[in-house]
Amino acid sequence: MNRADLVEQIKKKGSFLCVGLDTDLQKIPTHLLKEEDPVYTFNKAIIDATLDHCVAYKPNLAFYEAMGPAGLESLQKTMEYIPKDIFTIADAKRGDIGNTAASYAKTFYETFNFDSVTLAPYMGRDSVDPFLSYKGKWAIILALTSNKSAVDFEMLKMENGSYLYEEVLKTSSQWGSSDNMMYVVGATQAEALTQIRKIIPDHFLLVPGVGAQGGSLEEVARFGMNKDVGLLVNSSRGILYASKGEDFAQAASSEAQKLQVQMTEILGLQ
Amino acid sequence: MNRADLVEQIKKKGSFLCVGLDTDLQKIPTHLLKEEDPVYTFNKAIIDATLDHCVAYKPNLAFYEAMGPAGLESLQKTMEYIPKDIFTIADAKRGDIGNTAASYAKTFYETFNFDSVTLAPYMGRDSVDPFLSYKGKWAIILALTSNKSAVDFEMLKMENGSYLYEEVLKTSSQWGSSDNMMYVVGATQAEALTQIRKIIPDHFLLVPGVGAQGGSLEEVARFGMNKDVGLLVNSSRGILYASKGEDFAQAASSEAQKLQVQMTEILGLQ
Repeated sequence: MNRADLVEQIKKKGSFLCVGLDTDLQKIPTHLLKEEDPVYTFNKAIIDATLDHCVAYKPNLAFYEAMGPAGLESLQKTMEYIPKDIFTIADAKRGDIGNTAASYAKTFYETFNFDSVTLAPYMGRDSVDPFLSYKGKWAIILALTSNKSAVDFEMLKMENGSYLYEEVLKTSSQWGSSDNMMYVVGATQAEALTQIRKIIPDHFLLVPGVGAQGGSLEEVARFGMNKDVGLLVNSSRGILYASKGEDFAQAASSEAQKLQVQMTEILGLQ
Repeated sequence: MNRADLVEQIKKKGSFLCVGLDTDLQKIPTHLLKEEDPVYTFNKAIIDATLDHCVAYKPNLAFYEAMGPAGLESLQKTMEYIPKDIFTIADAKRGDIGNTAASYAKTFYETFNFDSVTLAPYMGRDSVDPFLSYKGKWAIILALTSNKSAVDFEMLKMENGSYLYEEVLKTSSQWGSSDNMMYVVGATQAEALTQIRKIIPDHFLLVPGVGAQGGSLEEVARFGMNKDVGLLVNSSRGILYASKGEDFAQAASSEAQKLQVQMTEILGLQ
């Protein structure tokens, strides 16, 4: 999906919500466990319940891989089920040298047909380049994450006075453009968004951490939005596990709709 | 596998060779493509041919994932086939927040029963901690890699004058011990090994980049070895694809043996 189509979807739906499909067998309603493929059954119901309220789905690879080959089958079926006008993100945080990176690009862009994949920047440009050669696909680079330990390295001060994550933004934004790169910035880092927007005014940001991790949607929007909205705000657990009962899909729909209503208001479209 | 058992294997075999199972359908001998599971058939033959010459196998997840669910089945069968006295490394370079990291730990340590997994340090301690709570399992952190773009971030100078990879070593080595952590240091970075050994004298290093990537075994050993050997040197393509003919396994055995002979000499055991 290209940038213009993504922006159009956001405006059409009055939503920049991404639903994180962190589907965990330990957490889904127990009545689904008797299904042949509980993960796919759960995802299907969640997608049906939320697709009018969101513009993106973000399966987290860890939860599918933990189930071995069967997990990747559930993922494949889930990807086939997601409507083509919804942006898809493989939350995989990969990063490896050239020929391995090319193989991961093939995995996510071809085998599973994702629109985008999250990448760790540590190994530098040649670990990202293979992801930028696919037309209509996106590399989403980790910049400043929502976890406590972001201070360990991401917020280390460099010789030139900037933080490591700022160097990552400055350097890596030269490798592609705002048409094929996005950045992960945690919602708990709202105060850093002003500075981040000085470095990358145009790029879309994927913002996890609203909800379970404590980030505020209003603050993220205030400091992070740009002329093309420029935000995909993710919620996973708050939507997926809103209810553990038979009404889980309805509860998920209602949580997603609440966020959509706030987002519509923020977008000034209501 | 614990440290004492790994060191014992190295001394017994006169080898600190790790064979990288970067098995790529495009590169394996074409006569194998008619097999039901060409990747597993290839891996099985490579394992049979090299197990007397190496102490570790390192499947590279990218190549298995690129084949979707069937790739993970090939990986699972490969893992079951590797003898228990050989150390196994999931070359996965994962790194994510707490509950996701826990799910990746489950993936590699439980679902696939690896002894260890490679991890990217960017997100800090809470992306590594879940991997350190498994007894007898190892987290192998990226420090200084063998690719050209290691200069982009790994070799950035920090405010305190050290390189980022040195900060990664200093900080992360406090999270566990040399009994459950190792570091990736590329063989092309031999000149940095002296400095690295000042920071982490006791840890094992996983050293890729000998062979196809141009690193020298002698230099790695001269600057990187410690009292418990402290090295696992990886070769992937140079062994796997030594021949594309029917004699591929024999050619692989011969390449692995050449490295073993050099290593035995280095270890002073011949």
